[in-house]
Amino acid sequence: MLIVMHQSATNAQVQAVTDAVKAMGLTAEPIPGSERTAIGVLGNQGYVDDATIRELPGVREVIHVSKPYKLVSRDFHPEPSIVEAAGVKFGDGQSPVIIAGPCSVESEEQMLAAAQIVKQAGAQMLRGGAFKPRTGPHSFQGLGLEGLKYLRQAGDAVALPVITEVMRIEQLETICHYADVLQIGARNMQNFDLLKEVGKTGHPVLLKRGMSATIEEFLSAAEYILAEGNPRVILCERGIRTFERATRNTLDLSVVPLIREMSHLPIIVDPSHATGRRNLVSPMAKAAIVVGAHGIMVEVHPDPDKALCDGAQSLDGDSFTKLVAELRRLENLLESV
Amino acid sequence: MLIVMHQSATNAQVQAVTDAVKAMGLTAEPIPGSERTAIGVLGNQGYVDDATIRELPGVREVIHVSKPYKLVSRDFHPEPSIVEAAGVKFGDGQSPVIIAGPCSVESEEQMLAAAQIVKQAGAQMLRGGAFKPRTGPHSFQGLGLEGLKYLRQAGDAVALPVITEVMRIEQLETICHYADVLQIGARNMQNFDLLKEVGKTGHPVLLKRGMSATIEEFLSAAEYILAEGNPRVILCERGIRTFERATRNTLDLSVVPLIREMSHLPIIVDPSHATGRRNLVSPMAKAAIVVGAHGIMVEVHPDPDKALCDGAQSLDGDSFTKLVAELRRLENLLESV
Amino acid sequence: MLIVMHQSATNAQVQAVTDAVKAMGLTAEPIPGSERTAIGVLGNQGYVDDATIRELPGVREVIHVSKPYKLVSRDFHPEPSIVEAAGVKFGDGQSPVIIAGPCSVESEEQMLAAAQIVKQAGAQMLRGGAFKPRTGPHSFQGLGLEGLKYLRQAGDAVALPVITEVMRIEQLETICHYADVLQIGARNMQNFDLLKEVGKTGHPVLLKRGMSATIEEFLSAAEYILAEGNPRVILCERGIRTFERATRNTLDLSVVPLIREMSHLPIIVDPSHATGRRNLVSPMAKAAIVVGAHGIMVEVHPDPDKALCDGAQSLDGDSFTKLVAELRRLENLLESV
Amino acid sequence: MLIVMHQSATNAQVQAVTDAVKAMGLTAEPIPGSERTAIGVLGNQGYVDDATIRELPGVREVIHVSKPYKLVSRDFHPEPSIVEAAGVKFGDGQSPVIIAGPCSVESEEQMLAAAQIVKQAGAQMLRGGAFKPRTGPHSFQGLGLEGLKYLRQAGDAVALPVITEVMRIEQLETICHYADVLQIGARNMQNFDLLKEVGKTGHPVLLKRGMSATIEEFLSAAEYILAEGNPRVILCERGIRTFERATRNTLDLSVVPLIREMSHLPIIVDPSHATGRRNLVSPMAKAAIVVGAHGIMVEVHPDPDKALCDGAQSLDGDSFTKLVAELRRLENLLESV
Repeated sequence: MLIVMHQSATNAQVQAVTDAVKAMGLTAEPIPGSERTAIGVLGNQGYVDDATIRELPGVREVIHVSKPYKLVSRDFHPEPSIVEAAGVKFGDGQSPVIIAGPCSVESEEQMLAAAQIVKQAGAQMLRGGAFKPRTGPHSFQGLGLEGLKYLRQAGDAVALPVITEVMRIEQLETICHYADVLQIGARNMQNFDLLKEVGKTGHPVLLKRGMSATIEEFLSAAEYILAEGNPRVILCERGIRTFERATRNTLDLSVVPLIREMSHLPIIVDPSHATGRRNLVSPMAKAAIVVGAHGIMVEVHPDPDKALCDGAQSLDGDSFTKLVAELRRLENLLESV
Repeated sequence: MLIVMHQSATNAQVQAVTDAVKAMGLTAEPIPGSERTAIGVLGNQGYVDDATIRELPGVREVIHVSKPYKLVSRDFHPEPSIVEAAGVKFGDGQSPVIIAGPCSVESEEQMLAAAQIVKQAGAQMLRGGAFKPRTGPHSFQGLGLEGLKYLRQAGDAVALPVITEVMRIEQLETICHYADVLQIGARNMQNFDLLKEVGKTGHPVLLKRGMSATIEEFLSAAEYILAEGNPRVILCERGIRTFERATRNTLDLSVVPLIREMSHLPIIVDPSHATGRRNLVSPMAKAAIVVGAHGIMVEVHPDPDKALCDGAQSLDGDSFTKLVAELRRLENLLESV
Repeated sequence: MLIVMHQSATNAQVQAVTDAVKAMGLTAEPIPGSERTAIGVLGNQGYVDDATIRELPGVREVIHVSKPYKLVSRDFHPEPSIVEAAGVKFGDGQSPVIIAGPCSVESEEQMLAAAQIVKQAGAQMLRGGAFKPRTGPHSFQGLGLEGLKYLRQAGDAVALPVITEVMRIEQLETICHYADVLQIGARNMQNFDLLKEVGKTGHPVLLKRGMSATIEEFLSAAEYILAEGNPRVILCERGIRTFERATRNTLDLSVVPLIREMSHLPIIVDPSHATGRRNLVSPMAKAAIVVGAHGIMVEVHPDPDKALCDGAQSLDGDSFTKLVAELRRLENLLESV
Repeated sequence: MLIVMHQSATNAQVQAVTDAVKAMGLTAEPIPGSERTAIGVLGNQGYVDDATIRELPGVREVIHVSKPYKLVSRDFHPEPSIVEAAGVKFGDGQSPVIIAGPCSVESEEQMLAAAQIVKQAGAQMLRGGAFKPRTGPHSFQGLGLEGLKYLRQAGDAVALPVITEVMRIEQLETICHYADVLQIGARNMQNFDLLKEVGKTGHPVLLKRGMSATIEEFLSAAEYILAEGNPRVILCERGIRTFERATRNTLDLSVVPLIREMSHLPIIVDPSHATGRRNLVSPMAKAAIVVGAHGIMVEVHPDPDKALCDGAQSLDGDSFTKLVAELRRLENLLESV
């Protein structure tokens, strides 16, 4: 931590700040400059709450060097992690994992049809929403437990592990029973109690980046899960909210190589929610693989025009099959680049 | 709903869209234009999911006229609502409500000291966080139930109703027992299950705007609570996330007169979280009253420099007492403007 | 400047960075910490370009303490400045200046009618756009020189100084001839050549904040003008671009007290462009005065519904007259608060 | 254009709006709905200024269907354009163009060294800044005319066409003399007078997207150039400003396929300014090619650690040579996908 004093700060003020730092059990190193004095703070084992310092007279700015996360960081875990879920591996050196399926489970038939498309195209995991977060209460909220069962059945029928979103703690036990991977949606990225409970299950977790979460907040959210003893976390970039509304969100692809530097956790990309437009899904999915994503998650529906949710961003069977084939060819080609 | 066709859309495509609209039980009115055709959709009672339409061939854009909320809207409830909580009234024609207290309950003594400051200054409600949402798991997470009890005791000691944040559904019963008003924090604005459960309690709710929530999403979140039969919702603007990081968030004050037009619910402002800087709290609090806020919520700590959380944005007793006096004078003056 | 090394940085890397700092003629002070080493850089007279440092092996982050501006800062000019333009004074201790007039000069009659409204209501300066920046080339681009003359005539007719926007350097001499204050629009805030030339004129300048300009960039833009020897700069907050599109922009009112702390230059607020909605102009104008703005700039049109530009955010004569009266009463009341 | 009336709008208000539309020479088609009336506006040849309508009593919203641009649109020019500049072709069916060189021309030697790297690596065009837009006036502002000459000499020495930024109209003639392509920087994207003058030259133009420009504004800026009779415009995505500051900007790659749908103009990507971090340049450059960019522009410096500007995002010769080789291999592979 570095404390920057105002140009006009008095020696007494510098002394008072130094004393306050010492009172916290830390070491203070004044660094006099030509324009102003700064005070380096040493000895902290991690992130320090700066409230007691920031408002002392003469303090202009407090700059943090330590981060609010640790377990997810490369600093403390230099080797990349491989997260395995029901036999599917996410991480360096693994083939990028393709997760696909409908936004929401709508019926036994629809889910099975989707599963067959997903399997035949060559994807490794099946998604389907049973409990749906919707902006307003008057939209379709998902089939709930019934939908969860259809998802499991469909996964079993085509021999694919399944992933579904968990929205409340009471659902956790049931969802852990039916699903192989728990998804935390963007709106719940900072639902810290849910993160803690998910951390206690030991179940693999796909954590989506919040709509306006910084990378630091994203990694800190993952830290909540790891801090409870669950290291099986897969990060997922799904677009951030910006001023641009021509796309549903703005896909921040540069986060992929950046997070690969900062964290050992695998990271995948969801181009469907990021763009909200069917014809942008394929190009952005390929781009995700090229920048080093460990997988992608795509919305697929047997009949997108009749989808109860997110039809506009869902691929149909033919488009998805074509995309998977292209991604696999791209993957092979990249190995030779 | 208005469906805008591509300039090159064929008559057959226009017809197919018209048929799809009719299949939804709605009426389609083609509006031929010089450059392109648009199709007006009539007959819907509320917001229509556009997935089945948006991706039909020849469709360029689908424009919604209806909103995903209804109960919170002035359209359906033209008269402004007064929300009453433990004798304190929020709404038009009422004196702006001042809610104050520490970010987090730290001890019995701290809470009582804060309560006395808040009461003596002339505020009407006491706040204090027992369960704290923190970016990282290694920061102070609040005293929990113990903190809740200290808050209640302090409120009783100075005869002020109390408000505190609820973060998980299992806490609801306990928090309803101890607190007069439930607060839903910005990070949980789209924790829809929590909103539903809070809606079932019938307890007054303060709903904070999410960090990157549009007005439409904010009102839709409130709609979740009202849709469960609980009309006692107070909205709270607390700053939005923008590119500007010189302040913690960007206080969007224009939302106050705008929401007063769109919704009948009362709306207050939290200048402490919005700015994150102590010396901006007073000016922004006054501005909030001037633009028509039904109250403000301010962080006050007996000794901000020793606060375990958000000390930098907390007022001490003297500053807060001065602020309340100024707000009351301003309130009286505004009546004469 | 503070250089933060990676946790894994070697002593040799720390030494290399230290050497590089010295090669720049500066002093390096290593600050060893428990987790990593940081290096304080001393001796610089201002902002240092960090390119030569940032990419050395082992460097994690470079943190700047000095700012890219100096002349506009309170650090170097502690006393607030009063900027005087044609007898009108902007700054501390002065009555807030009300500038008003149409978005664009449309005709001699319209401009004169607007001027009479503005004068009678009690404003101190007349605005009117002769050269208009429009998103697309097919929109009305302003009357140009003719409009400039109408503006001057109208100002003379009602004895008010006038302000108008300058968009290109070649217009400067002419505009300086006709107008008392030069306006730099938001889109040109970082048109650095225009800033330099405006700086050379010595004419008073109203500098609008760019749509996505940070406070640091805003003050740095003003620094360009002062660096050319022209200290007569008035800053103007006019809303920033955010994800929220219910208003044209998001008015960032907290910038007013914040800039008053950081800079000695006067700052005013334009609630018309900030909100884009006529009925939000009055509340936000009042709020601007309450937070300490040294003036406001408002769009007024004799017949807003027939305006060629920005009619939706323009006040008519009655609304503006009412607003000025309220602002003046508010101003007097605030003195007694 | 669609005008949506308030639910409570009276028949007389609907009539008044209808009359106002007719007074504009357009046709109004009321579309009565169950909740409210909407009025379709027909007959306009392009974008209509809605000021005269938006504020009429009873109007809730005005929705535009037409866009503020036309010449740049696929609607009016369905075939993709090939823009040729000094023998280099940008557009569909052409090999992606690689433009590279230093942020700023620093000396004759540096520029020549950079040119040799760029040429040998296999790029097709040389960049170099002679006139530099810098946030603050105290940073290096470029060598000006001298730099321009060095750039031309270096280009000639290695037989590459050159591109450089133009910041003010008076420079245009000189820059057109020395450079093959004119660059309009992000800060000048809405410097409309500069756009117009650049449009009059007929010289090829690379137009960078503004930091907070929507796609609509970006295309409208290009429209200014085309409207002056110059169709030789190449668009350039270079990252947008968002809340995320871990990267310099957020590269919005989805804009590439989207603009390819909306406009016939070629579009390239600048991963250097978009990310601001050297090690993100290569992955994002490859991703740009994969999503369909017609080229990339990359900062290359013979000795990035000594660069006077943007060293942190500049590649050195080895990295750039490796990148070009990878891009060419990727390009060939993509043809076979």
